[in-house]
Amino acid sequence: EILEAIERYFGLSAPLAGIRALVTSGPTHEPIDPVRFIANRSSGRQGHAIAAALARRGATTLLVSGPTVEPDPAGVEVKHIETAEEMWAACRNGLPADVAVCAAAVADWRPALAAGEKIKKAKGKAPPAIALTENPDILAGLSAAGNGRPRLVIGFAAETEKLVENATAKRLAKGCDWILANDVSPGTGTFGGLDNLVHLVSAAGVEDWPRMSKQQVAEELADRIAAELKRAS
Amino acid sequence: EILEAIERYFGLSAPLAGIRALVTSGPTHEPIDPVRFIANRSSGRQGHAIAAALARRGATTLLVSGPTVEPDPAGVEVKHIETAEEMWAACRNGLPADVAVCAAAVADWRPALAAGEKIKKAKGKAPPAIALTENPDILAGLSAAGNGRPRLVIGFAAETEKLVENATAKRLAKGCDWILANDVSPGTGTFGGLDNLVHLVSAAGVEDWPRMSKQQVAEELADRIAAELKRAS
Repeated sequence: EILEAIERYFGLSAPLAGIRALVTSGPTHEPIDPVRFIANRSSGRQGHAIAAALARRGATTLLVSGPTVEPDPAGVEVKHIETAEEMWAACRNGLPADVAVCAAAVADWRPALAAGEKIKKAKGKAPPAIALTENPDILAGLSAAGNGRPRLVIGFAAETEKLVENATAKRLAKGCDWILANDVSPGTGTFGGLDNLVHLVSAAGVEDWPRMSKQQVAEELADRIAAELKRAS
Repeated sequence: EILEAIERYFGLSAPLAGIRALVTSGPTHEPIDPVRFIANRSSGRQGHAIAAALARRGATTLLVSGPTVEPDPAGVEVKHIETAEEMWAACRNGLPADVAVCAAAVADWRPALAAGEKIKKAKGKAPPAIALTENPDILAGLSAAGNGRPRLVIGFAAETEKLVENATAKRLAKGCDWILANDVSPGTGTFGGLDNLVHLVSAAGVEDWPRMSKQQVAEELADRIAAELKRAS
């Protein structure tokens, strides 16, 4: 009876107890040479908030984070990386997991050759062109991880046009379960900002969420994850 | 007599009173598209410390800073910019100045065309190549500012090889008065780190400074600037 009460208590406050969560967050930096790199405007706020929300619900949470000024969330194991290749290695090492949330803005491409010395500007010499090569696709990789595939794989789609159409196509192409699509057009203030306007794209269709803080998106998503893992188990 | 005493007092504590100083700091971010950009590993620590040291000595100080997590120094007017072109415009607007210290790691090149929409990855499509074009050379521009040229123009040379040789050539090529040459090879921890190992290159030759904190480099440089402006006036 006491045991049941305890289980009920922890079931309410820690609906993700016993669950392993893997979250990616932040940008990746892709070196051009020892001092220059390609980056993107992800602040890491959304991913860090999601990791914190999952941990607060009792999940054993690993956060794989690119360079960001966000502090490490309490109760979360954080693995700091710089490049997409390092992030992918850290994610593979983080398996098995029950749920994976890929909130990082992973660079699609990296410079094909990172120069060992700083590339010098020379008078009268044309600027170099930077040849790119494709980075590992972490969301697709986790979705296709076979026996190691998390039961629930969630991605983000940062789009500047045709938001839901692109996100729906992305969900199918990547093989993940849910996509949170958000509009990062200049002027929306999403990248680097505090708020987020998202659409949850799943096999069931598209849900438009009202504009809310990234913190609220994290809480809402964590509740959805808890409900889905309970339903499916 | 009292006036003389006051002047002596402020002359000691504020050797740069009445002097206008222009300092650049931090990296620049050069957009590839609305979410991606080319950046570099400058933390802004050295430039911000120099601006603070000049202001503490009484200089009216304008700091033109790229994106950095460094707080705005007390007593300094700060103009925040992102790209090299914005930095150059802010510096021109900051003239006239008696002394200019170019500590920013200005990108030598920017993408020739910044895309208006996020560049999409498409299956089976080769990654794009990023064509670059030359950015304005702020150190050379300030050194060649004609009547508006600051009396003392100081640049930094971040090098990973042939440090003093490259810095000496840079001083002549840019037309500036002093170059502080620092070794940013991977492993030295200079970019993003707390310490700096610099060499002061001037028409008089090369001075090797001992390894010291970026704070100490700033104090030493500010004292040198005060002495030089007094000597030359």
